[in-house]
Amino acid sequence: MPYVDIKVAGTLTREQKAKIAEEITDTLERIAKKPKSYTYITFHEVAGENWAVAGELLDSD
Amino acid sequence: MPYVDIKVAGTLTREQKAKIAEEITDTLERIAKKPKSYTYITFHEVAGENWAVAGELLDSD
Amino acid sequence: MPYVDIKVAGTLTREQKAKIAEEITDTLERIAKKPKSYTYITFHEVAGENWAVAGELLDSD
Amino acid sequence: MPYVDIKVAGTLTREQKAKIAEEITDTLERIAKKPKSYTYITFHEVAGENWAVAGELLDSD
Amino acid sequence: MPYVDIKVAGTLTREQKAKIAEEITDTLERIAKKPKSYTYITFHEVAGENWAVAGELLDSD
Amino acid sequence: MPYVDIKVAGTLTREQKAKIAEEITDTLERIAKKPKSYTYITFHEVAGENWAVAGELLDSD
Repeated sequence: MPYVDIKVAGTLTREQKAKIAEEITDTLERIAKKPKSYTYITFHEVAGENWAVAGELLDSD
Repeated sequence: MPYVDIKVAGTLTREQKAKIAEEITDTLERIAKKPKSYTYITFHEVAGENWAVAGELLDSD
Repeated sequence: MPYVDIKVAGTLTREQKAKIAEEITDTLERIAKKPKSYTYITFHEVAGENWAVAGELLDSD
Repeated sequence: MPYVDIKVAGTLTREQKAKIAEEITDTLERIAKKPKSYTYITFHEVAGENWAVAGELLDSD
Repeated sequence: MPYVDIKVAGTLTREQKAKIAEEITDTLERIAKKPKSYTYITFHEVAGENWAVAGELLDSD
Repeated sequence: MPYVDIKVAGTLTREQKAKIAEEITDTLERIAKKPKSYTYITFHEVAGENWAVAGELLDSD
């Protein structure tokens, strides 16, 4: 029963999300023996204004 | 001090969210003895493109 | 595909967790029409030293 | 490697988010000795319809 | 700046976690063009008593 | 109603957690006008074996 939550700064195409989900689900099956149907993955695309690194929002100049 | 985070694929009506929040808060009061005012609940409606099961996005054909 | 994450301050008995999981899964089936088998729930029991309200850890005197 | 996730009911201005990120990153450096560049912070502004306290959505009358 | 949080029911060996982290970081670099050093991954191993599916704790008979 | 979840690699003393909670709650009151009593903060101390950066667990040699 893996649950994987992925937060990325910026956006991903549907294509990228489909491929990432496929690969991570495969990784968890091969390495951790988790049946594919058990794995839930959610994506959360976070705007630069809502993500800070080193104390600065990512959309700062 | 319960904090409950609910992620659902797709959307819920305001009506559904109101009823779910009421019932879960009641459950936590009856079973876990948590005063109602202590319970925070957040809803996060996730688009099919952002939720994968078994390695496939939910909006796949 | 609901995923529900429950954080509580302190501990719950196995009995309480079983009953809470049963009721919340039932709530999501009745109100949101989510098949029971789709619902994942995780519990996270947080020590008082790791939960603050109003700027004070819950295990403060 | 701190990761801080901030959920607020309602919205914040970009100005408020920039200042909050700056202060929290500074707090973690001064108190916990975490280098500023290690700290990731994400903001999630939650609509009143998606946040319940005491069993009531925040946008209830 | 991806942040990936992985919850699994049960435990993983250090070996499995190392391999999973390596593969997911690689996936995010290849597919989403995220530099490896940007990716944070956390693992959370959840006891069967703290994970429910279909309204039943995973350690139920 | 802010909810702040803090994950750190390694451990913090109770003293550090108390001070961090106090400062963050104060920041949210001053900058975002959130009454102190509304702010919940949880700490989660993550072992090096459960946190990866750049594809490597933090407890790697």
